[in-house]
Amino acid sequence: MDSEQSPIRVALLGGGTVGGAVARKLTSNADALAARVGRPLELVGIAVRRAGRDRSDLGVDPALVTTDAEDLVARADIVVEVIGGFEPARSLILAAMEHGASVVTANKALLAEDGPTLYAAADAHGVDLYYEASVAGAIPILRPIHESLAGDDVRSVLGIVNGTTNFVLDAMDSTGAGYSETVERAQALGYAEADPTADLEGFDAAAKAAILASLAFHTRVSSADVYREGISEVSAGDIEAAREMDCVVKLLSICERVPGEDGDGVSVRVHPAMIPRSHPLASVREAFNAVFVDAAAAGELMFYGQGAGGDPTASAVLGDIVAVARHRVAGGRGPGETAYADLPVLPMGDALTRYHVSLDVADEPGVLAKVAAVFAEQHVSIETVRQQIIEDRDDGRETRGRAQLIVVTHVAPDSALAATVDTLSALPEVAEVTSVMRVVGF
Amino acid sequence: MDSEQSPIRVALLGGGTVGGAVARKLTSNADALAARVGRPLELVGIAVRRAGRDRSDLGVDPALVTTDAEDLVARADIVVEVIGGFEPARSLILAAMEHGASVVTANKALLAEDGPTLYAAADAHGVDLYYEASVAGAIPILRPIHESLAGDDVRSVLGIVNGTTNFVLDAMDSTGAGYSETVERAQALGYAEADPTADLEGFDAAAKAAILASLAFHTRVSSADVYREGISEVSAGDIEAAREMDCVVKLLSICERVPGEDGDGVSVRVHPAMIPRSHPLASVREAFNAVFVDAAAAGELMFYGQGAGGDPTASAVLGDIVAVARHRVAGGRGPGETAYADLPVLPMGDALTRYHVSLDVADEPGVLAKVAAVFAEQHVSIETVRQQIIEDRDDGRETRGRAQLIVVTHVAPDSALAATVDTLSALPEVAEVTSVMRVVGF
Repeated sequence: MDSEQSPIRVALLGGGTVGGAVARKLTSNADALAARVGRPLELVGIAVRRAGRDRSDLGVDPALVTTDAEDLVARADIVVEVIGGFEPARSLILAAMEHGASVVTANKALLAEDGPTLYAAADAHGVDLYYEASVAGAIPILRPIHESLAGDDVRSVLGIVNGTTNFVLDAMDSTGAGYSETVERAQALGYAEADPTADLEGFDAAAKAAILASLAFHTRVSSADVYREGISEVSAGDIEAAREMDCVVKLLSICERVPGEDGDGVSVRVHPAMIPRSHPLASVREAFNAVFVDAAAAGELMFYGQGAGGDPTASAVLGDIVAVARHRVAGGRGPGETAYADLPVLPMGDALTRYHVSLDVADEPGVLAKVAAVFAEQHVSIETVRQQIIEDRDDGRETRGRAQLIVVTHVAPDSALAATVDTLSALPEVAEVTSVMRVVGF
Repeated sequence: MDSEQSPIRVALLGGGTVGGAVARKLTSNADALAARVGRPLELVGIAVRRAGRDRSDLGVDPALVTTDAEDLVARADIVVEVIGGFEPARSLILAAMEHGASVVTANKALLAEDGPTLYAAADAHGVDLYYEASVAGAIPILRPIHESLAGDDVRSVLGIVNGTTNFVLDAMDSTGAGYSETVERAQALGYAEADPTADLEGFDAAAKAAILASLAFHTRVSSADVYREGISEVSAGDIEAAREMDCVVKLLSICERVPGEDGDGVSVRVHPAMIPRSHPLASVREAFNAVFVDAAAAGELMFYGQGAGGDPTASAVLGDIVAVARHRVAGGRGPGETAYADLPVLPMGDALTRYHVSLDVADEPGVLAKVAAVFAEQHVSIETVRQQIIEDRDDGRETRGRAQLIVVTHVAPDSALAATVDTLSALPEVAEVTSVMRVVGF
C-alpha cells in the first residue's frame, strides 16, 4: 500500500446514539470522506462500557467493539470521545494525546470544567483538540466564532443552546400550561430525560456558555464562573406576563463584553429572559437551537439549526474528524486556544440587565410614588410603568381594592435590581411580587 | 528582532470601502490580531488605481499608498484583493501566488468565472486562497460548508445572497409599490447602485450560487453553468399573488443535488420564487442576507447577517487574513478545492420545480377542464386550483364574464412546466397569463 494512501486510524470512545451515528457514517460514506481528506479513514475500534450487549445497531463489524478503551486509544491517529462526563473521558483523552492522537470530543461538561488541562496537553503533544459538537449540536458555531470572526471583536453572544428548556418554554407559551405538566409532556415525547435536572436547572446551558465565552473573548471561562438560573421557577403567570409585553420567555446563555473604567470585563450567565417576539431568537421553536452573535465589524449574525440528536451531533463530530485528518495529511494544526485577553469574569451583580417586575398592590393614592421611590433609592431608572385593575384571580383570592403594577426598567447593575425587588417585597403596600424576569434584546 | 516575531507582511489591493475598513482594523486592532495569529501583521502597502487623491479616510500612513500593485505583491506574505472585476485582479492574484504569497479575496465574479485557474495556482505554489467575503458578506457561510459540514452531505443550499434585490422585493411587499418606483427608492437610499444591472438581473447572485454549489457538492460550477432570472419582471401583481398564497417573493440562489437513475446531478439556479411566510428565509428583511442549508445528517441550518457594506465585508476578510497568517506561523495550509465528485450540472429544464400560475379566463363551462388537460398533457400534476370572479381591474378593462384561475402544481421538470405555460397562453379561453412564478419551500 502506498504510504500516501495508508489510512488514518479513527477510534471511537462511546457506542451510544452519537457514537453509532458516527460509526455508520464513517462506513457508509467512506469514499467521499477519503476524497475530502486525501486519505482513507479507517475505523479501528469502538470502546463500550459493557461487553456482551447486542451492538448490531452500530452497523459495523462486531470485532471492532471492545471494552478496552486504554488499548484502543494507543492504536489510533484520531480519537473521538462521545462518552460524556468527567471520568474516564478525561483520562482517555489525555492518554490519546500522549500517544500522539488528535482528539475530537462532544464533551461540553469536561471542556467547561477542565478545558485548560486539555488545551495544554494538546499543545504539549502537538495534536489537535476539536469540539464543535459540544455546543449547539449540528450548528456550526465554534468554528465561526473561533475562525471566521478571528479578525473581528465579538461584543456579545446570546444563545438558545438547550433544546429541552426551549421545548418546555415554547410549549408553555403555546398551550398556556404550567411548568410541571409541560416537563412531564416533554419527557413523554423524548425531549426531556428521565432526570432532566442538568437541562432544566441550566447546568448544560452554563457549560456551553463557558465554552462560547472562552472562544469569543479569548479568555478562560469555566462552568464555575457562569451565573446560572434554570427554568424551574418560570410559571404560567410569567409566560402570560411576557405575552402581555409581546415577548416570549427563553432560557438564554449570555456572554457579554462589558466596558469598564479599569478595562473591560466579561459577563457570562444563564437565566430565563423575556425577549420581544420580533427578535430573531423568539422564533426558535420546540427543541431547536440558535446563537445570535454581535461583533464590532460584522454586526448581528444568527446561526440556527438542530442542537441535539444522534445524526445532527454526528455531523459536527464528522466535520471535526475531517478537519483534523486533513491536518494529518497536509501538516500543521488547527488554531488552538487563545486566552491572551484574560479578561476578568464579572460577578452577576455587576452585569447590566433590565427587569420586568409585576406587583400586586393596594389600589390607593400614593402607592405608585412609594414604589417609584424604591427604584430611585437604588438608582434604577424606570422605562415604563403600567397600572391595571386586577379583575379576578384563578385562586379565588380577594382582589377588590387592588391593582397590578407592571414596571420595566432601564439597564442597571443586576445587584441594584435585585435589591430593589427585595425592598419592594417588604413594602406593606405590596401584596405580592407576582413576576420578576430579566428583559433582553430590546 | 526575534525571527518568531518578525511580522507577517500584508498587502492590500484596493482602497475603496472594504479596503479602507480592512486597513483601519489592521492598524487599530494590531495587538489583538498579533496575539491571535502568534506574530504581528504589518500592513506594507495599499495599491490604488489613481494617484493624487486624498486618502486620509484610509486612516493609514500616506506613504503606504502606491499605484504600483505589481511591485507591492512581490513584497508581501499575504495579498488581499478587494479591487473586484477580472483584470487586473486575476493577474495580480496569480503574480502574488508566484511570489509565494497567500491570497485573500472577496472577488465573487472572478472566482465564479475562473476559480479553477486560481485554485491550481494556489496548489502549484503551496499557498492559501481564501474567499469567505465573496458570498454573503459578514456571514460565515463558506467555512461552515467547506469545513464544518465536510463530514456530512449537503442536499441543498437556498440563499438570499443579494441585498439590493431583497431590499427591493421586501419594499414592494410592504408598500405595494411597483418595481421601477421601488428601484428608484433603493437607489436614493443607497441600497442600489447607479447601474444596478448586476444585482437586479441576478448576475451577482449567480456568481455566489456558483461558489456555494462548488463547495457544497465538491464539483466545479462556474457562472456560465447557473440558470439566471433577475427580478425585473416581478410586478406588484406577482407580489399580491404571493400575498394571497401567504407567501413572499424572494430572489433565491438555489443549489440542489438531484438524484438520478444514471447518478446524481446538481441544479444551480437563480430566480424569483414564492416562499411561505412561515419559512425562516421569509423573515429576512431589507438588505440582509441569509443562507439555508439542508444536509443529510445535520438537517436544516440557517445562517443570517449583513451581506454587504465596508465593515461587515472587512470582518470576513480579516477572518481569512488571520486564518492564512496562522498557517504561516504554524505550518500547513487550509483545505483546498475538492472537486472530486465532478457531478454533472443539469440544464434548467431538468430541474424539479413547482409553479404558481394565475390565469385570466372566460367564466364559462368547460374552461377548467381544458386548462387541466393542458397540465395533464405535460404530465404535470396539479396540487390546488382556485377559481374566483374577477371583480375589477385597475386598468379599467372589461372583466364581465371572466374569472381568475390560480393553479399550484406539484413538483415537475421545469421544462414541462414552461411548456405548459406556453400552451396555456395560446388557449383561446385564456385571456391572459397574469402571473407565473416558481414556488419553493413548502
